[in-house]
Amino acid sequence: MTTPQAVRSDCVFCQIVKGEPPYSLIYQDDKVIVFPTYEPVNPGHVLIVPKVHAAYLNDLEEETAAHIMKVAKKVAAAIRKSDIKCDGINIFVADEEAAGQEVSHFHLHVYPRYKDDGFGFKYDKAIHFIRISSIAMDETAKEIRSHLK
Amino acid sequence: MTTPQAVRSDCVFCQIVKGEPPYSLIYQDDKVIVFPTYEPVNPGHVLIVPKVHAAYLNDLEEETAAHIMKVAKKVAAAIRKSDIKCDGINIFVADEEAAGQEVSHFHLHVYPRYKDDGFGFKYDKAIHFIRISSIAMDETAKEIRSHLK
Repeated sequence: MTTPQAVRSDCVFCQIVKGEPPYSLIYQDDKVIVFPTYEPVNPGHVLIVPKVHAAYLNDLEEETAAHIMKVAKKVAAAIRKSDIKCDGINIFVADEEAAGQEVSHFHLHVYPRYKDDGFGFKYDKAIHFIRISSIAMDETAKEIRSHLK
Repeated sequence: MTTPQAVRSDCVFCQIVKGEPPYSLIYQDDKVIVFPTYEPVNPGHVLIVPKVHAAYLNDLEEETAAHIMKVAKKVAAAIRKSDIKCDGINIFVADEEAAGQEVSHFHLHVYPRYKDDGFGFKYDKAIHFIRISSIAMDETAKEIRSHLK
């Protein structure tokens, strides 16, 4: 985890916040900017990016994280109202490389989904989505609960 | 889209809010409950669920959506501090069936990821994550922007 900084010259999202390289602005306020990603899951895939450099979720101010979700809700509603093909919406965050994060500046994805769009999860039926016992659920709950502030 | 209701007898998450069936509580407050899912991506996969029945993102009060992200940030930090295997975190929302939603009561997934966990996206290289032109990005931005309140 790193300390949040205003703008980092080595960060592509910080450069976008500064207006370089050019990007297609959807929305901005004092805390966030929203723009289309150049490699969309489906057309209409956008990123919500905090203006302050925060590499990971843990580096984000709580109020900024909350604001990002408010903006995500508004943007999702706008996508649904638009002419963009959309039967549903995914909101996705990859926090750290092991989770799929590619740019080390927190960002939240909002992307449209539609029936038979061919997108989804790749997983191993022997490992993932296996029904666990109530004992395992209790142990998971206890372990996480004990580390919640 | 449906109107938010306090509790629905035909909704499994509303029943969990009421305490039936039993579940393993991680956290609750006046707005949300957090508990492990019984079919985890990886051990430590939890759901954050608003106590009021809101089927979809659009049905959630904005402040509740914001609060859910604050709780997600706290829960993610707790998972990282815990003994649960975790090199990264995904936050995920499936909003409507076409996006993968299985229970029609809004819920946000928080799940640990680790290197070589075998989980990820299934997609078609001919369709998804294709680099688009700046013109296409401008058109996407314009279309969404025009529907933002």
